Amino acid sequence: MSRFLTDKILKLKPYVPGEQPKERQYIKLNTNESPFPPSEKARALAKSELDKLQLYPDPDVKELTAAVANEYGVKSENVIMTNGSDEVLNFAFMAYCDESRLAVFPSVTYGFYKVFAAVNGINYKEIPLKEDFSIDVNDYIGVDGTVFIANPNAPTGLTISLADIEKLLSSNTDRIVVIDQAYIDFGGESAVKLIDNYDNLLVTHTFSKSRSMAGARLGFGIANKSIIEDLHRIRYSTNPYNVNRTTAAVGLGAILDKEYFEKNCAIIKENRAFTESELKKLSFTMTKSNANFVFAKHGAISGKDLYLKLKEKGVLVRHFEGATVSDYIRITVGSYEEMTAFIQAVKDILKEISQ
Amino acid sequence: MSRFLTDKILKLKPYVPGEQPKERQYIKLNTNESPFPPSEKARALAKSELDKLQLYPDPDVKELTAAVANEYGVKSENVIMTNGSDEVLNFAFMAYCDESRLAVFPSVTYGFYKVFAAVNGINYKEIPLKEDFSIDVNDYIGVDGTVFIANPNAPTGLTISLADIEKLLSSNTDRIVVIDQAYIDFGGESAVKLIDNYDNLLVTHTFSKSRSMAGARLGFGIANKSIIEDLHRIRYSTNPYNVNRTTAAVGLGAILDKEYFEKNCAIIKENRAFTESELKKLSFTMTKSNANFVFAKHGAISGKDLYLKLKEKGVLVRHFEGATVSDYIRITVGSYEEMTAFIQAVKDILKEISQ
Repeated sequence: MSRFLTDKILKLKPYVPGEQPKERQYIKLNTNESPFPPSEKARALAKSELDKLQLYPDPDVKELTAAVANEYGVKSENVIMTNGSDEVLNFAFMAYCDESRLAVFPSVTYGFYKVFAAVNGINYKEIPLKEDFSIDVNDYIGVDGTVFIANPNAPTGLTISLADIEKLLSSNTDRIVVIDQAYIDFGGESAVKLIDNYDNLLVTHTFSKSRSMAGARLGFGIANKSIIEDLHRIRYSTNPYNVNRTTAAVGLGAILDKEYFEKNCAIIKENRAFTESELKKLSFTMTKSNANFVFAKHGAISGKDLYLKLKEKGVLVRHFEGATVSDYIRITVGSYEEMTAFIQAVKDILKEISQ
Repeated sequence: MSRFLTDKILKLKPYVPGEQPKERQYIKLNTNESPFPPSEKARALAKSELDKLQLYPDPDVKELTAAVANEYGVKSENVIMTNGSDEVLNFAFMAYCDESRLAVFPSVTYGFYKVFAAVNGINYKEIPLKEDFSIDVNDYIGVDGTVFIANPNAPTGLTISLADIEKLLSSNTDRIVVIDQAYIDFGGESAVKLIDNYDNLLVTHTFSKSRSMAGARLGFGIANKSIIEDLHRIRYSTNPYNVNRTTAAVGLGAILDKEYFEKNCAIIKENRAFTESELKKLSFTMTKSNANFVFAKHGAISGKDLYLKLKEKGVLVRHFEGATVSDYIRITVGSYEEMTAFIQAVKDILKEISQ
């Protein structure tokens, strides 16, 4: 670091993305990517944009916004498109938290929340999960501050019900509740239908997982019109061209090709069930995941050791440090072939350590 | 705006990008885009990325960073790739200014500086230009705060010398000086060669103008290693995947295809000279622009009226409000055909108003 850096930035702990090693070809089950490329239609639309890259993108992202609004049964004024869902989340921290208004989120959740808080100089409060990793919304009722809940949560895959979300929203209508639905296409009930009833709800989504676009950076928020106006205000003050031309085109194709999207989500759910059933046979314990990953532990080997041994065998999964989660590994659900190879590697490891 | 929005965001005035009207086909000379598409090589590289968009981009952007470093004669540790140069500029505001450390920049310059300051809760001081729109670095010598200078400046196109930049850097080695070189490929002396001598210098660049990539969002910063580390710290705390896969690929192609880049810059400079000479014949006054735009005024018509009449005739240029600049219009230098059409439209307007 330089001697010029401000205290705030010096003190913060940056986010650590899942590793992307280049030295060898891995079966990559560590960053919740889709095993499928974007649809043919999406890629064709992107190709035709490459000849126009000298021109700025539409700062209002009108066509894509309208398509997303249509798909989710809302109006364009209820949608903001962003550079990944990270950007809409960061905007929410900037818009609805400050030195006097806390950010509140579970102690085990998407690791970026506390980084967004820190980088914006916001104090935050972490609420512990229950022992079974579930979120009890009653723990949030009396807490003042803007609430961020990933639903399904990461890395547990657990969901809360729509009734619980309504309880949160109605218990204090003077605070914003952000429901981060990055993984909702793989399970759980979407809160989008609540936006007309609650002006304090913001729902966020990503194209990275279910729509195969982690490499293109696209996300969006859905909310009451006035919340969307707030977020556009920040967008125009930081990154007015946040969705570039090719990403907008791929995104449009991904929304329009609904059949491909639904087929892929169904395959991931099937492969998740297969993975869970195989892991159960091998005496693993798991949370009931509604996401495109499985969160699992085994009594005979620590999470860290299992992660390391799998890496040796060419399978990358994710391991998190921390008292309650370090026994576990998080395994992205990929193709059937990938999951079969993962299960075989696990079997080999369990055999080796029992010898 | 919603009733939840924080005061800081409520108070700020967002940036206003140049208009992108859709209702009719314009000759678009209002946002300093290149008239040329990215090179064939760049587009071919991008196409091959579309099949891999389901995978996150390399958060270290290694290959592109190395190519840029090589092109500018520095090491990879001296380069940070960003989502447009807006992102590296915003990072600089976040890293080197805070409530107690001012941002300092000219009163007439890139309009985003004051927005970045405001969105980050930073106080700023604007230093007036001289009457001829030039920047006198002596006005900055005694001012405490992080200095931002666009060189060439916008919308004037005027440059300051390398000697002046050194004077700024050495006059107070305890403050950062950011030299925003968005337009440097069209004229002026690059400050990149100074980074080894001054640990308080950050030079920023964009691929939007000279490398035909406004629609792809790519920029970079070059500086001493410790400054680059600061900026990465912020990148990993806001947007670790800031350069998406297709943009990285187009950017790599754009750097490697040096011949195409140099040919395009030469054409723009020729067309700028042509435009200036034609405008002079029509009794326009202009600044000595080193950028891909011309800043011109005419005694017989206000800047606003000329902008409006050109728009009626299908030619979009940019007009800025403000005491010193509102007499002028800023005309992006496009293709020869575009500039000929612009000059013809101006001739027609001057004829109309003289009748």
